[in-house]
Amino acid sequence: MSFSSIDVITTKREGGELSDDAITWLMDAYQRSVVAEEQMSALLMAIFFRGMTSRELLTWTDCMINSGETLDLRALSRPSVDKHSTGGVGDKISLILCPLVAACGAAVPQLSGRGLGHTGGTLDKLESIPGWRASLSNEEIYEQLETVGVVICAAGAGLAPIDRRLYALRDVTGTVESIPLISSSIMSKKIAEGTQALVLDVKVGRGAFIKDVDRARELATTMVGLGTDHGVATVAQLTSMDAPLGRAAGNALEVRESIEVLEGKGPNDVRELTLSLATTMLELVGIDVDPREKLDDGSALRVYRDMIVAQGGDPDAPLQGAAHKDVLVANDDGYVSSLDALTVGVAAWRLGAGRARKEDPVSAGAGVLTLVRVGERVERGQPLFEIYADDDEHLALGRDTLASAARVEEQPVDEAPLLLEKITR
Amino acid sequence: MSFSSIDVITTKREGGELSDDAITWLMDAYQRSVVAEEQMSALLMAIFFRGMTSRELLTWTDCMINSGETLDLRALSRPSVDKHSTGGVGDKISLILCPLVAACGAAVPQLSGRGLGHTGGTLDKLESIPGWRASLSNEEIYEQLETVGVVICAAGAGLAPIDRRLYALRDVTGTVESIPLISSSIMSKKIAEGTQALVLDVKVGRGAFIKDVDRARELATTMVGLGTDHGVATVAQLTSMDAPLGRAAGNALEVRESIEVLEGKGPNDVRELTLSLATTMLELVGIDVDPREKLDDGSALRVYRDMIVAQGGDPDAPLQGAAHKDVLVANDDGYVSSLDALTVGVAAWRLGAGRARKEDPVSAGAGVLTLVRVGERVERGQPLFEIYADDDEHLALGRDTLASAARVEEQPVDEAPLLLEKITR
Repeated sequence: MSFSSIDVITTKREGGELSDDAITWLMDAYQRSVVAEEQMSALLMAIFFRGMTSRELLTWTDCMINSGETLDLRALSRPSVDKHSTGGVGDKISLILCPLVAACGAAVPQLSGRGLGHTGGTLDKLESIPGWRASLSNEEIYEQLETVGVVICAAGAGLAPIDRRLYALRDVTGTVESIPLISSSIMSKKIAEGTQALVLDVKVGRGAFIKDVDRARELATTMVGLGTDHGVATVAQLTSMDAPLGRAAGNALEVRESIEVLEGKGPNDVRELTLSLATTMLELVGIDVDPREKLDDGSALRVYRDMIVAQGGDPDAPLQGAAHKDVLVANDDGYVSSLDALTVGVAAWRLGAGRARKEDPVSAGAGVLTLVRVGERVERGQPLFEIYADDDEHLALGRDTLASAARVEEQPVDEAPLLLEKITR
Repeated sequence: MSFSSIDVITTKREGGELSDDAITWLMDAYQRSVVAEEQMSALLMAIFFRGMTSRELLTWTDCMINSGETLDLRALSRPSVDKHSTGGVGDKISLILCPLVAACGAAVPQLSGRGLGHTGGTLDKLESIPGWRASLSNEEIYEQLETVGVVICAAGAGLAPIDRRLYALRDVTGTVESIPLISSSIMSKKIAEGTQALVLDVKVGRGAFIKDVDRARELATTMVGLGTDHGVATVAQLTSMDAPLGRAAGNALEVRESIEVLEGKGPNDVRELTLSLATTMLELVGIDVDPREKLDDGSALRVYRDMIVAQGGDPDAPLQGAAHKDVLVANDDGYVSSLDALTVGVAAWRLGAGRARKEDPVSAGAGVLTLVRVGERVERGQPLFEIYADDDEHLALGRDTLASAARVEEQPVDEAPLLLEKITR
């Protein structure tokens, strides 16, 4: 069937529902460049304003999945389960969680992207390990899932290729922040990757790209629906991202902290969030193993090391440090009432840990260590942050940014809970 | 000052007001292709949803005017006044009105466009006159205004060139129907053309692109504001476009009907609307002449003939006819209760009088003659329409379309008034 681009755009613009045939035609015509970039831009903006019905979104996501290849993991000897985070400051959970869940007996196919802006990317973090490579063939992914049980690697160009074009277009046309567009982008790749189950960690708060819990709930509900409708057992957790997660924000710094947690140490919030997500993942695939045991007995660390080795990395090689370091101290006695995750994230980014454009390199050693927690008693002059950079210029940028990140007040305050809600269909 | 395209788009998307500097930067950056077509598309769609404040629209229109050259008609020996119609079926008013107002002592610089879709373009109509040419240089325009008092020609590429790009983009991205975008497109060209006064004939009804009187009033008010703010004395009339104007819809057919009116004959609605617009135009430039006299004494016809000759046309040459003709008759006795202007317009277009794409040629002879008026008593078998086409295929297309254009009912009905409202600042 053939449609007119303008009819499709104006139907959406006027709040009408696009038929399955219209969406299928559109996505195919866009791939063949019959629908031009400027027409897709106008449609994306109309979708920003009008949203999509669940039927439209299902078809739209189907078309994205069908635009490329899909992996089939059903023949693996273990059930597969993956996790996706919408991105937060200091969010190194995948580095610990994926090996842990594999140590419990599942296969974890974590096909990931790179970081952009103030939240770091999992691949960027792992690339601070000498020798480790992010690019694997589909055969290597499958093989490693069978032997090690976990792979964290770059999502290949073959998975949902239309998402690359749509994402690049949204990025330059001010149409990123649309729940159906975000949902279809994330879920098309996760569904194409072939996982049988999925846990979504939807971050909400100052350091997340969604600040508002109602919107986070809407996004989570939409993604859970899309996954479920595609036969992927999907659950979402809304978790707070007001303060940074753990102490470390920066690539090698976060790898180091992840290993601490895998060794049974490390910050409590990172450990507890990891265990909570692991429990949910294992439930989804019916594995009755307590992840706490596998963390504490060193099994998860062993799987982590195997994973690094399988992808060419040396888990014993020293991680790159940073040549320049500084310390920021408290100006007053009191209690830490807030640690602004966004400010910490932007500081880490300016120190060199993140990139502004997707072509930019990142520094392995740069970043921020947050030495205190919300609710903690501090004294004037006590160190609050350590910052690391490759040169003095970046160090100064980070220091200036970070100056307003911590608030200290006279009255004691409680640390807010991390896990806000669990969303199932 | 430099801005980010994405910031401009998201500011508008979120309902904020763009600063003058931001708009000026944007329009210049778009001309330099720093702002890409897909970014402008997304912004146009955001403007569709969010509208523009009067300050934004004023600046946006200024930028369009300043993107090219402007004519200066102040040194003419006569005051200048122009008319713009938003387009209707059988709307040949300019062909009569412009020479008439010139015959009354004003200079009428009618720089016009071509028709697209179901409403014909003034230039297409005049091009059915052998030898007549639509393209004049700015010097020829000025000279002809001084000698003949009127010119109807194509708006040159130098006037508001950014409008060409924006219009082409709106046309393919479903962003045509936005009041600020329509207003700035029309008014930028009229203001750049240098006229001192302007009457806008805003069509509303079944055969107009605006069906709703509130929206027509909003468009008229917006354009009157833009003209006045730029020092052009501007008034708008809302006129009904439910039924076709006059009897003829089609290029040569409309030229013939215009000459009838210039000869003091022709359909009453065409004559009365022309006189109403002429009266308003003459008032705006302070000319105290009764246009009725200049129509009835042959002065307007003489100016019309001079204008055709000045642009290379032969006013005495026979107009091209159409090889194929058919007649549609009434199926019942009764009173004509409606004549659907849109259906008549689409029929004329399918008969060959209009174009679907701007590269298409048009037929000079094709079109529809509507033989009856709303309210008229007809008898079964009485001719309602004559249709003309260059071949049988087009004739059949037009006949099929036209079948539902007239409604005949048992009860008598009154013809609705043509002039609905007058809008001044």
